[in-house]
Amino acid sequence: MRFDLDNSIDILRRTPATLEALLRGLAEPLMRGNEGQETFSPFDVVGHLIDGEETDWMTRARIILSDSADKSFIPYDRFRHRARNVDRTLDSLLSEFARLRADNLAELNGWRLTEQQLDLKGVHPTFGPVTLRELLAAWVVHDLGHIAQIARVMAKQYRDEVGPWTPFMPVLTDHEVPRS
Amino acid sequence: MRFDLDNSIDILRRTPATLEALLRGLAEPLMRGNEGQETFSPFDVVGHLIDGEETDWMTRARIILSDSADKSFIPYDRFRHRARNVDRTLDSLLSEFARLRADNLAELNGWRLTEQQLDLKGVHPTFGPVTLRELLAAWVVHDLGHIAQIARVMAKQYRDEVGPWTPFMPVLTDHEVPRS
Repeated sequence: MRFDLDNSIDILRRTPATLEALLRGLAEPLMRGNEGQETFSPFDVVGHLIDGEETDWMTRARIILSDSADKSFIPYDRFRHRARNVDRTLDSLLSEFARLRADNLAELNGWRLTEQQLDLKGVHPTFGPVTLRELLAAWVVHDLGHIAQIARVMAKQYRDEVGPWTPFMPVLTDHEVPRS
Repeated sequence: MRFDLDNSIDILRRTPATLEALLRGLAEPLMRGNEGQETFSPFDVVGHLIDGEETDWMTRARIILSDSADKSFIPYDRFRHRARNVDRTLDSLLSEFARLRADNLAELNGWRLTEQQLDLKGVHPTFGPVTLRELLAAWVVHDLGHIAQIARVMAKQYRDEVGPWTPFMPVLTDHEVPRS
């Protein structure tokens, strides 16, 4: 599939409503359950997505589009949310994420990016030069990967409840060595 | 986590709205893209979930709760949707799924199942005796597994667009040998 900016913004716009439907008011053991030590619960994932809105995707897009000679991205803290959200509720994080995402997409839409601008590059701290197009595609994939993760982590809380169905439900045995 | 009927019904109730947010009006290549031959696109998954509402979960629950001496489940056709939905739109399938799910949950709620009833058994065509509790837990896990699948399959349509991010996005390389 060729990258299409409108389709990509369309997917990014769906994520807050998807998470609302899946998570608002969810029972505590489902909201806080994870796949083992150092892995993310649904609560953690929403916090991580908020961090992405505030410190990752749009921050890096602005660097690429800036007049600065130095296009290096600032490394992104995948665990900022842990300390930040200690006293927060999941429902308040969902509202905050929806607000941040709406603001970011309004800004992104306002840029009316051309194909030439999508070819502009920044420098990723790990893998070097990346285009704005690749950054925006990675944002979309990052959202979808974390939606898949939330559904998988919720499913795994039922792993002892399905009895003989376990081998027929691949989502229960995906990521035996968990990755967050 | 111990099986809780109310929490399980709560998750089952979320699925139509989750799929609405993720899929209604989605661009054709994203709606129809899959992970390779014989795997499900998002369109296929919604059709498969409709088949589940009409021929699988509640049908089997009714068999378990019936007065019949024979509690054998009828084998379930995982590919019924392929012929059934040839002329359908995704949006019409989403509406149909939401209606069927609402009806099924109204019936399930109306049963006011006791712990004793949740222990009752039926006979699965592949793995033999299963309890009503296990059947309902499997229904929940089945929903969540297919939500994860839809997000993963959508993400994979971007696999050539993210450039050097690929190895850092596990959702793109999950299920190298695809399972539907």
